[in-house]
Amino acid sequence: MLPFSTQRTEAQSGRITPEMEIVAAQEYLDPEFIRKEVAQGRLVIPANKIHMEKGLNPAGIGIACRTKINANLGNSPISSGMGCELAKVNCAIQCGADTVMDLSTGEQINEIRQKIIDSVQVPVGTVPIYQVVEELEAVKDMRPVDFLRVIEQQAKQGVDYMTVHCALLREHLPLVEKRTLGIVSRGGSLVAQWMAIHQQENPFYTHFSEMCEILRAYDVTWSLGDGLRPGCLADASDEAQFAELKVMGELTLKAWEMGCQVMIEGPGHIPLDQIEMNVKNQMEWCHGAPFYVLGPLVTDVGAGYDHITSAIGGTLAAYYGVSMLCYVTPKEHLGLPNLQDVRAGVIAHKIAAHAADVARGRVHARDVDDQMSRARAEFDWEKQFSLSFDPETARKMHEESISETESPHEYCSMCGPKFCSIRNSRAALRLNKNGEQERDSV
Amino acid sequence: MLPFSTQRTEAQSGRITPEMEIVAAQEYLDPEFIRKEVAQGRLVIPANKIHMEKGLNPAGIGIACRTKINANLGNSPISSGMGCELAKVNCAIQCGADTVMDLSTGEQINEIRQKIIDSVQVPVGTVPIYQVVEELEAVKDMRPVDFLRVIEQQAKQGVDYMTVHCALLREHLPLVEKRTLGIVSRGGSLVAQWMAIHQQENPFYTHFSEMCEILRAYDVTWSLGDGLRPGCLADASDEAQFAELKVMGELTLKAWEMGCQVMIEGPGHIPLDQIEMNVKNQMEWCHGAPFYVLGPLVTDVGAGYDHITSAIGGTLAAYYGVSMLCYVTPKEHLGLPNLQDVRAGVIAHKIAAHAADVARGRVHARDVDDQMSRARAEFDWEKQFSLSFDPETARKMHEESISETESPHEYCSMCGPKFCSIRNSRAALRLNKNGEQERDSV
Repeated sequence: MLPFSTQRTEAQSGRITPEMEIVAAQEYLDPEFIRKEVAQGRLVIPANKIHMEKGLNPAGIGIACRTKINANLGNSPISSGMGCELAKVNCAIQCGADTVMDLSTGEQINEIRQKIIDSVQVPVGTVPIYQVVEELEAVKDMRPVDFLRVIEQQAKQGVDYMTVHCALLREHLPLVEKRTLGIVSRGGSLVAQWMAIHQQENPFYTHFSEMCEILRAYDVTWSLGDGLRPGCLADASDEAQFAELKVMGELTLKAWEMGCQVMIEGPGHIPLDQIEMNVKNQMEWCHGAPFYVLGPLVTDVGAGYDHITSAIGGTLAAYYGVSMLCYVTPKEHLGLPNLQDVRAGVIAHKIAAHAADVARGRVHARDVDDQMSRARAEFDWEKQFSLSFDPETARKMHEESISETESPHEYCSMCGPKFCSIRNSRAALRLNKNGEQERDSV
Repeated sequence: MLPFSTQRTEAQSGRITPEMEIVAAQEYLDPEFIRKEVAQGRLVIPANKIHMEKGLNPAGIGIACRTKINANLGNSPISSGMGCELAKVNCAIQCGADTVMDLSTGEQINEIRQKIIDSVQVPVGTVPIYQVVEELEAVKDMRPVDFLRVIEQQAKQGVDYMTVHCALLREHLPLVEKRTLGIVSRGGSLVAQWMAIHQQENPFYTHFSEMCEILRAYDVTWSLGDGLRPGCLADASDEAQFAELKVMGELTLKAWEMGCQVMIEGPGHIPLDQIEMNVKNQMEWCHGAPFYVLGPLVTDVGAGYDHITSAIGGTLAAYYGVSMLCYVTPKEHLGLPNLQDVRAGVIAHKIAAHAADVARGRVHARDVDDQMSRARAEFDWEKQFSLSFDPETARKMHEESISETESPHEYCSMCGPKFCSIRNSRAALRLNKNGEQERDSV
């Protein structure tokens, strides 16, 4: 066996790594506390040693930290080239994405990935089965040697975390038949096809230990993929979903034993009233490993606005203990996002993550809200713009609305001067105090 | 005293009005159940008799009904004319607004209002103090006779519900001094100014019975305004807010006694973890009168995206029992909304209301989601568009994304054909079943 050390093994040996120090500083938390959380598996620091050498700025994903958000990017076989994808990656990070996943399935798959890893300082994730299948004529031709090679190749490139659908078993397939929408995970549906064709168990399940050996050598973090996440409200919290989640719990223990860091992917489409239960089940069955959810979307009919249906579910999920939200863009269910969609998706989920951080009382989370409120009280428009998630848009909207008037510093076009509540409120309080003082002095 | 009958008095007399019948049909509920809810004050049907004659389609606002959403419209002294405001009203209703409030404070205030009432079939609300103050040189000149006249005039025009800030008392003003952002309600800040100048109690509080007499003559529904709603997270759930809410509870009983229908306006800016408590307090202190909230916004830093910060809070509020959400547009805190902002605001809050209705298990609420899921399973794109909140936008986004390929009916540009999970899932299940049957037959 190759010698290895991961954030997990270091933490378990009582050592605080430089990465833990950085995360502690980012989160205003004690390094020793971070170490303990990593040792217990409640916090991961996806930091491939090769990406660290290339300048990765590590981030902590776990219940003790600020809620993180991920942006999925990457071309598909029928859309988008390298320049365009890199522009989206940069836009996502500029808007505040904490990690990015390169989900390319089209051409130049290795080149795009390497370019992304080399140029960004945030953790990068992938779904290796996309490349495996891309390189084959059909999914049925996939052999264990193929995906072990691709996983190693991607690990060597510096990928920080990988999604593999290891927990979807043959015995789950009959449970899927009851569903309205079947399997909506791309990776999950490929694994299901392979199992159905070969009438054999999921090869990612049977070769889990071999993959753990590769991942831990680079300290690539597991992101155990939820191949059976519900794709609609009707399928939410069903037998298939929870059967897979329980297998993810088993694999978490196995990966931990082998020294790997683990997070768990989650749904999907979930009605609001089932979100808390879903998060609690994951925490219990997966032993506290960080939960990383896609949405959840709280309705199926949000096409064109699914960044909002997802931000609603995501806020609540994060409030109940989810550690990372995968963004969803307005184009979800309709097509690949363009630059504007990426921006809208990232900002909606930054809002969700922040709202949850405030509600959970995370250290200093509300500071920016309080600064904003003071800036509003003082009509300090410049400060208001700079404290917004998207200063450029906020400024543009404000300027649009005042274009017809002469620089109204102490009111805006929502109310005009006579009806400005902040002006009037201030005047009222001043007058009331004076009045009371006069009365007292009589 | 003039003779009068309102939905409330009719319900209390055991009579089911035509309006109750209509609401029952809309909500898939029993008319007798609707009558009971109206009698108990948990449901209002804002239907001014004059607007009914002009073709109002009445709507029920209460915990037993689908969550409603309101769109605020109207010009301000420094922006927008009549044509533009009417276009916004029509856009809001087309996108699904269940009621509209005309908050005009600029010119042509009577003409705009009459035009809106005459042309829309949804309930129309106003905030009469805007007109009172508009017609005076300054708020200090306001006399009870002025606002009683304006309220009667607006009632005669057919306004279905009116917001008056009756519950903000002089004793509350010192509580406001502790706040970061003071009073952010336009009406509330005007009332506060009047009280401070005259060193007298809120005239809307002292003349409450006279206003009740006018309102019940037309069956205008009270919307007791929350002059002290928190305008930032730092001020949420403070003494000032809850002191006013308790007075609203007193006034609810008084208005009920006089035969009026009542709903209660609510916040504002509230962190996610305080929303449930806020809704519970309102229900208890205001004796179950329907709660109508503005947002709540779950962070202060969403400028440019406050339709999202509001939709997040609104979903949760509605889930806990709020009956109507007032929309917030992306321009909130920045300027008056344009047509595109109105659309974005309405749709975000339709999503919020619908997600809450699904989570509360309201009758038939989830039907549209299930239809959408089946349409997705069948690659029925036309049906998917038609079931969306905004078919036009959904279609446009989808068409953008397929423009480079030849009409891909059974996949979209998100994944392409090889990676389409729905195709692959279907193939996998078919194969798996065949495989099992073959095995069984061996």
